[in-house]
Amino acid sequence: MTVYLVGAGPGAADLLTLRAARLLGEADVVVHDRLVERSVLELIRRDAELIDVGKEPGRVTSQSMINDLLVSLGHRYETVVRLKGGDPFVFGRGGEEMIALSEAGVASEVVPGITSAFAGPLAAGIPVTHRGLSRGVTVVTGHLESHDDGYFRRLANPDLTLVVLMGVRTRSSIAAQLIDGGLSRETPVAVVESAYTARESVTRAELADLGSLAVSSPAIIVIGPCAALSVHELMASAALV
Amino acid sequence: MTVYLVGAGPGAADLLTLRAARLLGEADVVVHDRLVERSVLELIRRDAELIDVGKEPGRVTSQSMINDLLVSLGHRYETVVRLKGGDPFVFGRGGEEMIALSEAGVASEVVPGITSAFAGPLAAGIPVTHRGLSRGVTVVTGHLESHDDGYFRRLANPDLTLVVLMGVRTRSSIAAQLIDGGLSRETPVAVVESAYTARESVTRAELADLGSLAVSSPAIIVIGPCAALSVHELMASAALV
Repeated sequence: MTVYLVGAGPGAADLLTLRAARLLGEADVVVHDRLVERSVLELIRRDAELIDVGKEPGRVTSQSMINDLLVSLGHRYETVVRLKGGDPFVFGRGGEEMIALSEAGVASEVVPGITSAFAGPLAAGIPVTHRGLSRGVTVVTGHLESHDDGYFRRLANPDLTLVVLMGVRTRSSIAAQLIDGGLSRETPVAVVESAYTARESVTRAELADLGSLAVSSPAIIVIGPCAALSVHELMASAALV
Repeated sequence: MTVYLVGAGPGAADLLTLRAARLLGEADVVVHDRLVERSVLELIRRDAELIDVGKEPGRVTSQSMINDLLVSLGHRYETVVRLKGGDPFVFGRGGEEMIALSEAGVASEVVPGITSAFAGPLAAGIPVTHRGLSRGVTVVTGHLESHDDGYFRRLANPDLTLVVLMGVRTRSSIAAQLIDGGLSRETPVAVVESAYTARESVTRAELADLGSLAVSSPAIIVIGPCAALSVHELMASAALV
């Protein structure tokens, strides 16, 4: 009779929280997204029901259908886990799901997860803040609806690291707007593809070249001086000393 | 011979990752900050050495002293954990520590944690992004050095949620600059004090009144339309239905 909105973190099963792992072991039913990795699903109780509501291209599972499903499950089961990649409250639409549950009289609770917005760069050895290079960080999505009005132009701020989720398709427009807004064409950029999977790769470039990079989704784009850091490479060289 | 920079998350012990908990159980020595909660320290191997490098007022443990300590421990012990509140790469100065370790030829690895910047608002029922209210989120600190030059004026963006860490002391100046930069005086604000502790409390107000609120550190300030949301109150009313 409680729906737990649980952050699954960036992908690796051991980057779930202890609380998330406990709830997966207790759940009667788990409603998950397409992007949740197999190793995460293995933490789920053997006899739990699994429902995949991943939004695949060409297959429509609307947010309102997911909301209705959660309400219906919340009325039927003792412990429902709604497992979401990253954090439910950072581009996870968890707020919407909790409001829908509340309006239907179903109790809910949210469990934070590690957001891919920060763990993706970290996988590439990039701190999103670093003394002398960045005084803060902005996280946005690259969805088209976000920048038909010069939205990215206003995000040009050399003091901050900019992390763009779901921005591969619109990266040319993003780069053009940021340069138009005042960012240097030479601003370092890193594209982290498929972080925390076997296919993980990192491509580094300058902002002016972002549009022409051969990269594909899912990817996280990091823009700003921190994007030139690679603590991993430093580590690799340290290991050789 | 490896120093692990491990994020401890926002405070609650069960919000550590499985990977962090495993490393705490294996570490020969753990170097931690003042803000790490007792229940987190209980995850540490019984015979491990504990070193508190928390930066207390009046007591100076400089970053370079911490760096030197980590290098020295990294040469002596098999498994060193540097445990940091939140995430090591989000205002955690983890990048600096890894670079110092690398320069000294000590291998290191970073383990992400849940950043307080997002988990603090979540504790108050505030999603930092929410469809129709916020298209993204910016995280900065309120340290004085950050805004002697009108820095916060440039962060006034009604499309984004603004999360300010360590901003209690300078909140008057922050509010004044944001209003000067174009944010409405009525912009919702929430101050989350001592998130994930028994002393946790949430104060809500409008931006114009931020400076006069009776709040104290440690606290996280959330500014923007999302700050008016309280999914927790919705849940409480749902439980009564």
